[in-house]
Amino acid sequence: MARINDNYLKLAAGYLFPEIARRVNAFAEANPEAKLIKLGIGDVTEPLPEAIRTAMIRAVNEMGKSESFHGYGPEQGYAWLREAIADHDYKARGCEIDASEIFVSDGSKCDSGNILDILGHDNTIAVCDPVYPVYVDTNVMAGHTGGANEDGRYEGLVYLPMTDANSFEPALPESPVDVVYLCYPNNPTGATASRETLKAWVDYALANNTLILFDAAYHAFITDEDVPHSIYEIEGARKCAIEFRSFSKNAGFTGTRCAFTVVPKGLTGKASDGSDVEIHGLWNRRQSTKFNGVSYIVQRGAEAAYSEEGKAQIEELVGFYMENARLIREGLIAAGMTVFGGINAPYVWVKTPDGVSSWDFFDQLLNEAHVVGTPGSGFGASGEGYFRISAFNSRENVEEALQRIGAKLAV
Amino acid sequence: MARINDNYLKLAAGYLFPEIARRVNAFAEANPEAKLIKLGIGDVTEPLPEAIRTAMIRAVNEMGKSESFHGYGPEQGYAWLREAIADHDYKARGCEIDASEIFVSDGSKCDSGNILDILGHDNTIAVCDPVYPVYVDTNVMAGHTGGANEDGRYEGLVYLPMTDANSFEPALPESPVDVVYLCYPNNPTGATASRETLKAWVDYALANNTLILFDAAYHAFITDEDVPHSIYEIEGARKCAIEFRSFSKNAGFTGTRCAFTVVPKGLTGKASDGSDVEIHGLWNRRQSTKFNGVSYIVQRGAEAAYSEEGKAQIEELVGFYMENARLIREGLIAAGMTVFGGINAPYVWVKTPDGVSSWDFFDQLLNEAHVVGTPGSGFGASGEGYFRISAFNSRENVEEALQRIGAKLAV
Repeated sequence: MARINDNYLKLAAGYLFPEIARRVNAFAEANPEAKLIKLGIGDVTEPLPEAIRTAMIRAVNEMGKSESFHGYGPEQGYAWLREAIADHDYKARGCEIDASEIFVSDGSKCDSGNILDILGHDNTIAVCDPVYPVYVDTNVMAGHTGGANEDGRYEGLVYLPMTDANSFEPALPESPVDVVYLCYPNNPTGATASRETLKAWVDYALANNTLILFDAAYHAFITDEDVPHSIYEIEGARKCAIEFRSFSKNAGFTGTRCAFTVVPKGLTGKASDGSDVEIHGLWNRRQSTKFNGVSYIVQRGAEAAYSEEGKAQIEELVGFYMENARLIREGLIAAGMTVFGGINAPYVWVKTPDGVSSWDFFDQLLNEAHVVGTPGSGFGASGEGYFRISAFNSRENVEEALQRIGAKLAV
Repeated sequence: MARINDNYLKLAAGYLFPEIARRVNAFAEANPEAKLIKLGIGDVTEPLPEAIRTAMIRAVNEMGKSESFHGYGPEQGYAWLREAIADHDYKARGCEIDASEIFVSDGSKCDSGNILDILGHDNTIAVCDPVYPVYVDTNVMAGHTGGANEDGRYEGLVYLPMTDANSFEPALPESPVDVVYLCYPNNPTGATASRETLKAWVDYALANNTLILFDAAYHAFITDEDVPHSIYEIEGARKCAIEFRSFSKNAGFTGTRCAFTVVPKGLTGKASDGSDVEIHGLWNRRQSTKFNGVSYIVQRGAEAAYSEEGKAQIEELVGFYMENARLIREGLIAAGMTVFGGINAPYVWVKTPDGVSSWDFFDQLLNEAHVVGTPGSGFGASGEGYFRISAFNSRENVEEALQRIGAKLAV
């Protein structure tokens, strides 16, 4: 009799976004005339840049001739894409990352979940709270936790609160942890980490042999000159950190699918016999065995993100969403709300008025303003009393949403 | 200190295809003038059909306008693609598979590896021998085996020999197993399973509560009317089988990336408390949490594989490779070799002449005929003394390879 992975049964509830979809669908069915504006899930809305589309069409046409047809590509990604990434995203910022340390994939969600394949089951794991739910849920599924308590916190994970009370700077763990997930610019709070903050994490990791899983999916939204884009801008990070990046949010690839993970050579973990094992080789083996590379056509599109035209078009796209973020911040402040984030990140993190719960505020916003956001408590116990508004939408929708919020919910 | 997954260290050697690449590169460096013909890895070579390219270009253009832009799609795949698959691949063959039971993915290699995420660690697992290495290696990586013996067989797996001696029909396991991997038409032997053979497996699975993981990646190459394309053509299979399929080999998608997995509702596994848990819900949760769907553009291409033009173009493509297979079969027989497969499958399985080992024959073919194939022993201990030749290449290359083999290696 085939046995299932029981750990799945520990998952406290549906993944956050399906639960939102359920409530939104129920509302839409009951109110078919209402025009909903979705500022919930962090999904881009603006067209894929022209330089990227042109490159993809060229690639599709190449696939139509034997002499330029592409079958299986390298599981790690094509050299030309890995080199473009190394040059533009790393060497240009002074980070010594080689193309061979970059693994192209179809998504950061996949990579940040799959990375657990190559780690042991007995690590002490820390996450910020609130947190991108994938980090937590994949650990539950892998059997790294006990059950959830009534706040939705799983036994065995170390939660690092990240709230207004500590200016969204989680304290270093009190006792050593083996693995810590960090996400900057932060999803969901929109907070950024200064060079000093990241240096403190790298120093902590080197002192405690901690592996940092650094999610930089939102780095393109950084506008302050002195905020680091990559963990590798900090000395020593090559010895303690893996970095996840994506084309989803900067280049509009949420539906096109391309991302990458950086695993520096020389970064090691411990085997049970006490020996040090290079993580690069393990990830390479994982990807070679369980993955077959990203579509050639999509990789050509991603490469075009680094052309002169591509870079200019992406800058414009990012600027568009950041102007949305500014409007949201200012509109909500004008409506009397307390807001965080939205400056170097496409998320505005709102304190719910009068201490109402995150899900109550969700329902209120949905029912009164027909606007969908994301309840902070869906990201963790410390997200209770907060609410995430995403800047990913058209200008028209953002302006209308703010108008409705101002009219219906001003405090 | 972050601990690694020690099970990776049990992996006996490099994954088969990288080892082949290593030998081929060494030969090519030493013999830069030699024109190598690769009939090793099962990678398609002919252009992507026009109907598919047209659909993909249309999709790229849609991504260029806000009103037809596509961001995150459903993790399970778009309904229109799932419905096309259900109608054309299943309902048209009398299989009651609903669109909601189909999960679109970026590859069968991924799915057949990832499926272990939702299964327990204490199942008894059977594989045919020889076998597609991914089934074995992913079980090793998940900790379901001990170490490898000198033949490369891992302790704890049940191997079902599949050789000339049993007409490539593996016997049912002597004692009950919880999970069995089956691949028909078979990679690497090119054998097919009759309705009776598959019925015996389904009956066995129902009697023993065994989960069948059925890989039908090569179904399009079946030419005999009475050979089943799907395990679901057998009554009762919905209660015991998951099926993997791919667009890689029929539609030429090895570099474009699209596949799907069928998980019937009502198929269950046991939790440790003895309760039955639907596997559909577990896989849905796995995919929702660790995967973000296939590129919209690629899914539109896959959908076009089911249009009238697409179907005709794919039929032509499959016919082209099957004519290669016929030429290879007949050419090798004329050269005095004993061959199997190549009739309902794009692989010809050759008995090495004079009992030479698979790797020796590999080196001989490489050095004397400058032709690359795949050593049978790379697929398992029972593959020793066999050799796989793939029909995926241009007509010109296939003919030249056969000429060289006839001239240099005829027995």
